[in-house]
Amino acid sequence: MQRQNGVALWRQIADRIRTAIADGTYDQTGRLPAEARLASEFSVNRHTVRAALASLAQEGVVRAIQGRGTLIERRDRISFPISSRTRFTEGVAGQASNLEGLLLDAQEEAASPEVARALQVGEGSAVLRLETVRKADGRPLSAATGWFPLPRFAGLVDAYRRTGSITRAFALCGLADYLRARTEISATHAEDRDLQALGLTPGAIVLVSTAVNVDLDGTVVQYAVSRFPADRVQLTVTGG
Amino acid sequence: MQRQNGVALWRQIADRIRTAIADGTYDQTGRLPAEARLASEFSVNRHTVRAALASLAQEGVVRAIQGRGTLIERRDRISFPISSRTRFTEGVAGQASNLEGLLLDAQEEAASPEVARALQVGEGSAVLRLETVRKADGRPLSAATGWFPLPRFAGLVDAYRRTGSITRAFALCGLADYLRARTEISATHAEDRDLQALGLTPGAIVLVSTAVNVDLDGTVVQYAVSRFPADRVQLTVTGG
Repeated sequence: MQRQNGVALWRQIADRIRTAIADGTYDQTGRLPAEARLASEFSVNRHTVRAALASLAQEGVVRAIQGRGTLIERRDRISFPISSRTRFTEGVAGQASNLEGLLLDAQEEAASPEVARALQVGEGSAVLRLETVRKADGRPLSAATGWFPLPRFAGLVDAYRRTGSITRAFALCGLADYLRARTEISATHAEDRDLQALGLTPGAIVLVSTAVNVDLDGTVVQYAVSRFPADRVQLTVTGG
Repeated sequence: MQRQNGVALWRQIADRIRTAIADGTYDQTGRLPAEARLASEFSVNRHTVRAALASLAQEGVVRAIQGRGTLIERRDRISFPISSRTRFTEGVAGQASNLEGLLLDAQEEAASPEVARALQVGEGSAVLRLETVRKADGRPLSAATGWFPLPRFAGLVDAYRRTGSITRAFALCGLADYLRARTEISATHAEDRDLQALGLTPGAIVLVSTAVNVDLDGTVVQYAVSRFPADRVQLTVTGG
C-alpha cells in the first residue's frame, strides 16, 4: 500500500475491498472479515479500515449490523453493453428496474470546435445541449452531456421531459432508429459537478464514454459524453 | 475543487490539466498558462500547481523549459480498439512504433473459481498464467495477466519469449486464428504491483479490461485481465 501518492489510504483500502467483494472473495460468508483482521491484512490501523468501511457503507456496498459484523449488500456492478445498438433502457434490462431519465439542464448554444467536429456541423452552429442523469432503482448510473444539431431536434427538450428517454424522445422528433457509430472509453476522477448528480464520494472514479450516434443515412444525430461511476457500472463489449 | 476527499489537490489539478490538454484547450499556444494563472483558475496556491505540473512532467505530458514556460509534449492518448478481432499490434498500428511484449512471469497453477468459470474448465485444472507488459516506443501501454488451458498451450511460454506477441505465440502453438468473445471494462486505482511495471505515479487510474478469447470452434483459449494507464490509453468501440 502506497502512503504518499495523493490518494488517501482509506480510499485505497476501500478500492481493494470493493474489488475483493466483486471477485467473490467473501461469497461463502457474505460478510467482511473483522476490522482487526482487515487492518492486519492491509498493514494499516483500524481507524483507516473504519474510514474505508464507512465509505463503502455510504455507497451501499456493505452494511454494518450490530453484533453481526459487516454484511455485503451488493457485489455486482451493472453491465452496460456498448454496441452499434446501444440503448440505455435495453442495456440495463434485467439488472435493474424503475429506470428514470432526469433532465438537469437544457441550453441552446454555439458549437465548440470539439462539438462541431463530432456533429459534423460548422463551428458556432446552433446546437442543443442536454444534461441528464439516469437512475435505476433510485441509484444514479450515469450523468450525460448530449449535443444535438438544430433545428432538426428543436423539439427534443419537451420530448425528453415527457419520456425520460433519448430513444423515445428521438422517436417523437421523427427519428425512429439510430446507430452508435463510435465509442471512446476513458476513466478519470469524477469532476465536482458530477459528485452531487451521481451521489459519489469525492475522489471516486468514473468511466467516461464519448460517443457518436448516427441516423440510418449516416448523419450524426448526437454527440454524448457520459460518466458512469466505476464502482457501480462496467461497460461490456460483445464480439460481433 | 474538493479539499477533503481522499485524493490530493495536486492530483485533481493534474487530472483537470490533462483533460484540458486532451480537449485541445491549449492547442493555439502549445503551452500551459503561467503557474500564477493556473493557481488562480483552480483557486489553489502555486505550490499545489507546481506539484501537479511535476506529476504531468513525469508522465511526459508537459515539459518545463527555462524562459519558455510549460510546453505540451503530448496531447493524444493511444486508442486501443475493442472488437471481435482485437489484436494488440494491429490495434496500435499507426499510433506508435517499436512495439514490445515483455514476459514478467510464467507459472503453471490450479484454476481458481474465477479462472475456471472463464476458461470453462474444472476448478483446480492445470492452467498457464502469463504476466506480460506491452510497450510502445519504450512507454508501457498495458500490464496483462493471461490464463490459458493446459496441456493445449504448454508451448506458449517459449513461443511468447521468442515472439513477444500472444497472437504469434498462439500461431506457433497451432492456433492460427481466434476471436474476442466478450470484454468487460472497468476502472480502478492502479495496484501496487502495476505501478512499477507501468511506470505510473502512485494513485494513477487504470482502465481494466477483462476478456475472453475463443478459437473458431468457440472453445475458450484465453482469459485475460489487462490494465491500461488511463492517462495514456483509451479504449474504442466501433459499431458493427
